[in-house]
Amino acid sequence: MPDFTDKLRPSQPDGPSTLAQERVQSNISTEELGKHLLSSDGFIERQARILPILQQEPILSKTKQQNLSRPERFKLGLARAKLLRRLSDEHKWSHDDYKMAEYLVDDVSPYFLHMEMFITTIREQASEEQRAYWLPLIESWKIIGAYAQTELGHGSNVRGLELEARWDGHTKEFVLHSPTLTASKWWNGSLGRVANHAIVVAQLLLPEPGSDRFVSHGPHPFIVQVRDMKTHQPLEGIVVGDIGPKYGYISMDNAYMLFDHFRIPHSALLSRYSSMNPETGVYTKPDQPALVYGSLTYVRANIVHHARLVLARAVTIAIRYTTVRRQFQDRDGDKRGLEISVLDYPTVQIRILPLLATTFALHYTGLAMRTVYQTAREDIEKGDFNSLAYMHSMSSGLKSLCTMLAADGIETCRRAMGGHGYGGGSGLIQLNNDYLSKPTVEGDNWMITQQVAGYLIKKMSAAVEHQDRAGDEMDVRFRAFIREKRAGGLLRGYDVLNNDRDIVKSFELRATALAYDAYEQRVIKKKNWNSLLIQLHKLSRAQSQSIMVTTFFEALSTDKALSAPTRITLWDLYRLFALNTMENEGYEFFRCNAVSQSDLDALPARIQYLMGRIRPHAVKLVDSWMIPDYLLDSALGRYDGRVYEDLFNRAHRLNPLNRITFNPNYWEDEIVKGSGVDGSDILSKL
Amino acid sequence: MPDFTDKLRPSQPDGPSTLAQERVQSNISTEELGKHLLSSDGFIERQARILPILQQEPILSKTKQQNLSRPERFKLGLARAKLLRRLSDEHKWSHDDYKMAEYLVDDVSPYFLHMEMFITTIREQASEEQRAYWLPLIESWKIIGAYAQTELGHGSNVRGLELEARWDGHTKEFVLHSPTLTASKWWNGSLGRVANHAIVVAQLLLPEPGSDRFVSHGPHPFIVQVRDMKTHQPLEGIVVGDIGPKYGYISMDNAYMLFDHFRIPHSALLSRYSSMNPETGVYTKPDQPALVYGSLTYVRANIVHHARLVLARAVTIAIRYTTVRRQFQDRDGDKRGLEISVLDYPTVQIRILPLLATTFALHYTGLAMRTVYQTAREDIEKGDFNSLAYMHSMSSGLKSLCTMLAADGIETCRRAMGGHGYGGGSGLIQLNNDYLSKPTVEGDNWMITQQVAGYLIKKMSAAVEHQDRAGDEMDVRFRAFIREKRAGGLLRGYDVLNNDRDIVKSFELRATALAYDAYEQRVIKKKNWNSLLIQLHKLSRAQSQSIMVTTFFEALSTDKALSAPTRITLWDLYRLFALNTMENEGYEFFRCNAVSQSDLDALPARIQYLMGRIRPHAVKLVDSWMIPDYLLDSALGRYDGRVYEDLFNRAHRLNPLNRITFNPNYWEDEIVKGSGVDGSDILSKL
Repeated sequence: MPDFTDKLRPSQPDGPSTLAQERVQSNISTEELGKHLLSSDGFIERQARILPILQQEPILSKTKQQNLSRPERFKLGLARAKLLRRLSDEHKWSHDDYKMAEYLVDDVSPYFLHMEMFITTIREQASEEQRAYWLPLIESWKIIGAYAQTELGHGSNVRGLELEARWDGHTKEFVLHSPTLTASKWWNGSLGRVANHAIVVAQLLLPEPGSDRFVSHGPHPFIVQVRDMKTHQPLEGIVVGDIGPKYGYISMDNAYMLFDHFRIPHSALLSRYSSMNPETGVYTKPDQPALVYGSLTYVRANIVHHARLVLARAVTIAIRYTTVRRQFQDRDGDKRGLEISVLDYPTVQIRILPLLATTFALHYTGLAMRTVYQTAREDIEKGDFNSLAYMHSMSSGLKSLCTMLAADGIETCRRAMGGHGYGGGSGLIQLNNDYLSKPTVEGDNWMITQQVAGYLIKKMSAAVEHQDRAGDEMDVRFRAFIREKRAGGLLRGYDVLNNDRDIVKSFELRATALAYDAYEQRVIKKKNWNSLLIQLHKLSRAQSQSIMVTTFFEALSTDKALSAPTRITLWDLYRLFALNTMENEGYEFFRCNAVSQSDLDALPARIQYLMGRIRPHAVKLVDSWMIPDYLLDSALGRYDGRVYEDLFNRAHRLNPLNRITFNPNYWEDEIVKGSGVDGSDILSKL
Repeated sequence: MPDFTDKLRPSQPDGPSTLAQERVQSNISTEELGKHLLSSDGFIERQARILPILQQEPILSKTKQQNLSRPERFKLGLARAKLLRRLSDEHKWSHDDYKMAEYLVDDVSPYFLHMEMFITTIREQASEEQRAYWLPLIESWKIIGAYAQTELGHGSNVRGLELEARWDGHTKEFVLHSPTLTASKWWNGSLGRVANHAIVVAQLLLPEPGSDRFVSHGPHPFIVQVRDMKTHQPLEGIVVGDIGPKYGYISMDNAYMLFDHFRIPHSALLSRYSSMNPETGVYTKPDQPALVYGSLTYVRANIVHHARLVLARAVTIAIRYTTVRRQFQDRDGDKRGLEISVLDYPTVQIRILPLLATTFALHYTGLAMRTVYQTAREDIEKGDFNSLAYMHSMSSGLKSLCTMLAADGIETCRRAMGGHGYGGGSGLIQLNNDYLSKPTVEGDNWMITQQVAGYLIKKMSAAVEHQDRAGDEMDVRFRAFIREKRAGGLLRGYDVLNNDRDIVKSFELRATALAYDAYEQRVIKKKNWNSLLIQLHKLSRAQSQSIMVTTFFEALSTDKALSAPTRITLWDLYRLFALNTMENEGYEFFRCNAVSQSDLDALPARIQYLMGRIRPHAVKLVDSWMIPDYLLDSALGRYDGRVYEDLFNRAHRLNPLNRITFNPNYWEDEIVKGSGVDGSDILSKL
């Protein structure tokens, strides 16, 4: 309905003119930097090709989805997921094309587990015969599968799973049974409402030869049909459903599932690595138990690599909005000029610009993680398992650190945007709600740092024992540290303010010193492992920060292609990321002799100086991440800066609540004016 | 529907037996501690009286509300708010009783602004005549009002508001007009759908005597009818509505509102302090502009006082759940015993137990803040404005620090609960979503720290100039600092590990040293104010932390009534809060000579030792906050520990998604099995 607001414009200077000015004032080429960041695996071309296809589809429109209920939102999610598969067939999308579409639509697919863990587990752990039977059904989506491992009572401790798969030698079947409530499968995505099959992980219970007792051979994967293919109802002996609302992942049907003496055939046991002879009952162990680390590491490496785009989204919104947003004239000025862009306040910069630098640090770290993963996989295929431990340690520490940086960074960006950051126009609500799962899934961020510490303590023990043997870069560094420590001197005098390489060395020294402390406590003093956990967590963080700083430094040092303006600013971002990290943990660096007191005291001023240098390029830098408005779904973060127009449009024209007139009189039961109806229609849903 | 899961129980030891054991092993009396914390203003009696009344009302049941859409949730919120007012009439509730009911129901009321800012503004800023007319209408809820100050383009900078109230001398009316889109009122609670009146803050534009130009006299409050009393439609010349979904506050109708040359009578200008003669056009300024600080400080003081109960809620849930939750046997043990309660891991303790200590720190700080507020109000009533500046500074700094502690604390608790913390059974989703507004409302947490810094710089300037004059405790401390600094020595040797009072002194010294630094930069070196903002923020934090530590120490030092076990543990909590805060900002304390390097190095072990002492009392300590299950609405945090039973009940019996059977075949449009209907019913809502 037209009204007098249609003619109103925001006060001047408005968003578009402000952002235009920002883009003119910086000599960074977003095209060059964008290619540098995103062109290697065809990301830019793919995004440009897929995006317009999606934007044509009304059901993929996001602007009003925040108003839907959980059941409506799930229906929408399923309709969208079906459409994406059909578009994929129609346009002959590659797997990467399909992932791009999912990334842009930004709804977790109810088919997600089918396409990831279900098919991967069949590929990796099923026998040839099993694969020949199941893979065609899976790839055509004739059956939909999930992955049911974690239970109500057990997540991290996989060995503690309670579900039993007991061999019945008479019928040659396994009997799946949940002996307790806590044995219920729990959290298993795609299984709550959608899947009709699942990989079910259960304790393999086999009779002890010559006895009637059963012995557990530990958790094993079985493929199980769980719902009828016609009615889609759970099979007799199975209770399965969706666990209910969560922080995010609204379109995902995470499941609970229990079994009551449910029988499955011998062929259900996935038997590429371990198997059991149905005639003799003899069990064959897997050759190489470490192989199962493979897929977990793959998932963690992907999380590390993806974190940059998550944080870039939040930082893009925050930088564009805080540039457009103006508040107060300069207190020391004449107070007649324009109000200041909020991003010009150092208290806003100190929250957002280090996170901008972090997006680049995450980028180079993600690339390095991928390279390490691919190299290790190739080694493993050749039967060389030497790099497995390092890869596993690195992926654990970085998963913990990077998801923490991204999750906390989203909320820091939101708060830096003040009041409007709390509104639905921020574009951060769903991003935040979904991403908050990451610090605890695929290995809890605090628990898995033990894997880093365990690795480093082993390396340090070896360095202490074998001062002369050949080794990798870390061995060399650890040995040098030990030699110097024995010689009694550890004053390095790194010049972190003026030498970029010394920053790397400072981070390495701190991580090495903490590794030595941990070694001393655990190996020399024989302290209880659990009593050291806080210290070990700090060690993992120090090591992972060191990796981030080192990879950032090396990426810039080896680059020959970037133009001077871009290169100069990337070095500033490197320094800002590293020095800001150092300041936040200043005392630890100081205690390890990794930085001098005078340099520490100079850090705040240096950080503010670096932020001043980066500030003019801030908008161009986030533009280079090339995140389309469709993905941002943010009034505050729009590329064109029409912040206030969009906020008003969402409120005045798109908000369904404004189509309802309410009755405000408390003495009248009626809720919707003129309806004569009290709250009983809502009451029926409570 | 009954099924085989009805008979299943969790594995042993289950939640009830674990919590029973926890409660037996601690000699703390929850009754004693609960009274100590909550009995002073009748809180415990009130909660016990109101709670059963609420639990009888089906519409106040919370367990399924997470499944509702925004419009449904708003209808529910309005129905509940009407009911609360009716219950209040029926049971003759006092204002405190009514607030207790709101606190327990935990839905922000669509009438909230009517009962707070609307009525308060009329009481404080309306003339006698205006009050006589409006207050009866307001108190009977015959009219519903809101408070419309902030605009789309202006929040913090109130002087920059764009809405105009231009005096028309011919008709003796003000003309309200929004000249731009950014002049739209925005965020104004209770106004989007419910209120029919509002306090509207607009630039008072009066003709310059003897000219046809208008001059702004700054923002002034007007009372304006905005909707028709019969149809509840906006009056001609007004556009008003709800701004749409937000992070939280789902049952609040935050508004946008614009005016198109909308005329209001002269009597609309609230004229207790400033007024305008309608005959002559002469404007009379308020006597005492500082008075307007009063209500803002009141709101901030309340936020500070309330923070303890917010954080206590999250900590209650986290401690109960991490006690019931067991995962892994001791790595160094024989691995045959029970799995360990997750709260026994130091990496879980270090996240939750300092927050448990923080709830008590917030409690004593909140009490102190209230006392300062009440004393200052009494002084002001007597015409003594000396304490106003201190009160304003204290409330600003504490609002910033305490809301940050509580908001971040909720999320820290959630993550410490691992996977289940991400589910709807955590009871933290709405608490988190609602509370995330607090760091930015009522003065942005980063912006208002300037008010603390400004106050301290003034005090330090005075101390430098007047070494001999009498003064308050802060003046004495500042002068001593300056004397010592001039004498060239500042080595204190505070024994923070063994002397509780020295901890207070250490915090004071750090805050004083930072205040002196800020004074030096601003007053001596004349640095630009904005360039110092990060430093000033750190100063405010240091000062506010010092207040928290001091009030905690003084409360325990002066208490004579508590029994030994409780007192001993409260002192441990004091030490944990203070020393953990000190460790997190270790380098700043070190740089200010407020702590020695050897003491800093000893902090991690001391903190772990304190956590070990507090751990056995953790469940009893959170029990003492007496937060009822109805308010917690948490499977994980139930008093009886039936965590897994409740999670399963919510999933299997209460989740509406499980009543829908879906069609998983991507090649079929149908979404709900057997319905034959595609996603078009959802599409109509997009």
